[in-house]
Amino acid sequence: MIKGESHRFLSAWSAIRKLFKVPINAPGSNGEDQRTLVASTVPLFEPFICRSASVRHPTPGIPKQRISHGKQAASASQSPVSVTLPMQIGIDSFAAAISDPTTGATLTPAERLNHLLDEIELADNVGLDVFGIGEHHRPEFLDSAPPVILAAAAARTKNIRLTSAVTVLSAADPVRVFQEFATLDLISNGRAEIVAGRGSFVESYPLFGLQLDDYDSLFAEKLDLLLKIRDNTHVHWSGQHRPALTGQGIYPRPLQNPLPIWVGVGGTPASFVRAGTLGLPLMVAIIGGEPHRFRPLIDLYRKAGARAGHAPEKLKVGLHSIGFLADTTDQAADTFYPGYAHTFNEIGKERGWSKTTRAQFDATRGPTGALLIGDAQTVAEKILSVNEALGGIARLTFQMGVSTLPHQKMMRAIEILGTQLASMVRKSLATVPDGT
Amino acid sequence: MIKGESHRFLSAWSAIRKLFKVPINAPGSNGEDQRTLVASTVPLFEPFICRSASVRHPTPGIPKQRISHGKQAASASQSPVSVTLPMQIGIDSFAAAISDPTTGATLTPAERLNHLLDEIELADNVGLDVFGIGEHHRPEFLDSAPPVILAAAAARTKNIRLTSAVTVLSAADPVRVFQEFATLDLISNGRAEIVAGRGSFVESYPLFGLQLDDYDSLFAEKLDLLLKIRDNTHVHWSGQHRPALTGQGIYPRPLQNPLPIWVGVGGTPASFVRAGTLGLPLMVAIIGGEPHRFRPLIDLYRKAGARAGHAPEKLKVGLHSIGFLADTTDQAADTFYPGYAHTFNEIGKERGWSKTTRAQFDATRGPTGALLIGDAQTVAEKILSVNEALGGIARLTFQMGVSTLPHQKMMRAIEILGTQLASMVRKSLATVPDGT
Repeated sequence: MIKGESHRFLSAWSAIRKLFKVPINAPGSNGEDQRTLVASTVPLFEPFICRSASVRHPTPGIPKQRISHGKQAASASQSPVSVTLPMQIGIDSFAAAISDPTTGATLTPAERLNHLLDEIELADNVGLDVFGIGEHHRPEFLDSAPPVILAAAAARTKNIRLTSAVTVLSAADPVRVFQEFATLDLISNGRAEIVAGRGSFVESYPLFGLQLDDYDSLFAEKLDLLLKIRDNTHVHWSGQHRPALTGQGIYPRPLQNPLPIWVGVGGTPASFVRAGTLGLPLMVAIIGGEPHRFRPLIDLYRKAGARAGHAPEKLKVGLHSIGFLADTTDQAADTFYPGYAHTFNEIGKERGWSKTTRAQFDATRGPTGALLIGDAQTVAEKILSVNEALGGIARLTFQMGVSTLPHQKMMRAIEILGTQLASMVRKSLATVPDGT
Repeated sequence: MIKGESHRFLSAWSAIRKLFKVPINAPGSNGEDQRTLVASTVPLFEPFICRSASVRHPTPGIPKQRISHGKQAASASQSPVSVTLPMQIGIDSFAAAISDPTTGATLTPAERLNHLLDEIELADNVGLDVFGIGEHHRPEFLDSAPPVILAAAAARTKNIRLTSAVTVLSAADPVRVFQEFATLDLISNGRAEIVAGRGSFVESYPLFGLQLDDYDSLFAEKLDLLLKIRDNTHVHWSGQHRPALTGQGIYPRPLQNPLPIWVGVGGTPASFVRAGTLGLPLMVAIIGGEPHRFRPLIDLYRKAGARAGHAPEKLKVGLHSIGFLADTTDQAADTFYPGYAHTFNEIGKERGWSKTTRAQFDATRGPTGALLIGDAQTVAEKILSVNEALGGIARLTFQMGVSTLPHQKMMRAIEILGTQLASMVRKSLATVPDGT
């Protein structure tokens, strides 16, 4: 999905093998489901439930440092820099076109987008922190113009932050992207964010006349330009993939200074290092396998950031996860599975994945798996566990749309997320004074 | 301003001279205010007030035909094709950055955009038909991303149509433009429109790496592609200024089929002919001079449309006019003038216009001049006169923002426009059955 960058997984895989000295016969190297590849390459982290811990960033550059919990952390002298992390909780949507599985009726695109706006409004009303809209250029998604959807959402909401998830920056003009999100930022009174990524689907390339061979240089160059535009109204810049700017002004300027720009990544180590080196917050898409196994990659990010001299509070890590909430865990799983299997089997046809099975699904929604599916209590505990395992998570977004569920079920899930789960997580991660 | 295409006026002027055999010493050829150029090149039409007329399109190809009025028109046998035209009335805005002249305070961009959204919401509430947002890439305007502003407006309105005014298509990718407006169309339940133009400011060219030498071919080619995308989900197309499409799908598809696409023009005869030949509705920017003098250019459009075989009801003409309403005509003029003079003097510095004077302003708001400034009765009568003179106007939009007026005065003007002027005009142009 977004940020999964699965079509680059084979080369990423090779890089990871070198990095972690994974044997050639490890899962993923022989055609196994690539989603579990990263998760299978590093040692298993034993999860535990932490219900009243305020987890702090470990000191950059000391990734293996033991994590401090709760009030004990305030006096944790082994941590020279201590940053208290509240966790933002939100939702990402790709505005999937939906056929209602209960009625068989296909929603019109207009009905679907209006339902999506209802969902964002509800997410705001129940106090969720952030709502993201993806970018795709395919018939099954209605999100080719995320800032347009987000602007409508801005007019219907008060507090929730509004972000792309992700902007496929490689295929876009950073000037237009900045203009659109600066406008969104003004309209929303400072609630806009950009998550910039390379995208995991490849349809943008032929659509915008780009070459897949330029996959990496397109992103690197456009991210560089986007950051220059953020820092300067008048921009001097030249590159390979976009006409040069010789001091032109880019307007309007956003309300937030700086406008938040995250880097959205899948499993490519170089992407983690790039984000860290630039001191940009990181959104990691974890759509399969076991989240705690991403720790070495996240440590790569934090190390690269520290090496480049960035303050630890700048090096925030967020997760984009597949998840769904219902009143009971069984109900959540049974509701979510059919649509999930359908979506992953469809994408799997393009990517050579093995067929999704219920057993695999059930395993992945187990205590250490990536799927955040269940009742509020179950999922809250799992989030706290992942938070511990990854050294502190600043944002967690639920991608609930892969299952193309009926509107009412999505609304109920959002309600549970806001009124039950978020408060459980917030209570457990209650802020403590910075320890010194 | 938009669609004014003033920097091409000299070549347009040469074309018009050839077309209408205007002597070389006519106004405009010697450095006079270019805004009055077109208006000074054709014979004066004697205006008259028509208070209860339903004006119909004259037969295409017979532009000099006498216009029929009211119920008499139903039996006007000299008109083989008779199309009853209700007139849509609306507002265009460029989201000008505003310093409040009464308080001296500069609005923040966020305040200004939120005021603009209030204005659009009020325009909807008082029953206006359409609201347009321009596109500029300059510090004095906040409208570089019109679909983003319009999407926020869509969420706050129910009935009003939402359009660009204009989309600077020459500098844009028609794929992105279509995606954005299709998304807006879905969000607004079928209220989106595009007015595509070349823009009258030139700052888009260096910003997007384009050459002014390609001014015309850029627009022609991109309009061709935009129309192809409107007609086909999967597009095969190649051109000079954008990578080829070889059957890629463009999503989402809009609710309206076809999504309305107008051509926005200034005074360039070739632009009128192009729009007519393509059978596209026409928005004419008349920001100075005398509107009735555009009749020969509009006839060019209608003739070209008829020659290309387009039905007369497709060949709609709209006007983008500078105007402002207040409770009395003196109040409207005195309120509007200072900001108007400031704006035109600033633009005039770039374009070599003579300094704006109050005498010139007062003349231009006279019975035959282009400025629609006054109380509702005065302006309604003027609109009916212009409607007669130009052979039937399908849409008239007021550009009230050139004067960068305080929010409350804009709100009052919108209220008068919707509750007084629009009903006067609608009553006068009451629909009659199609004559045969």
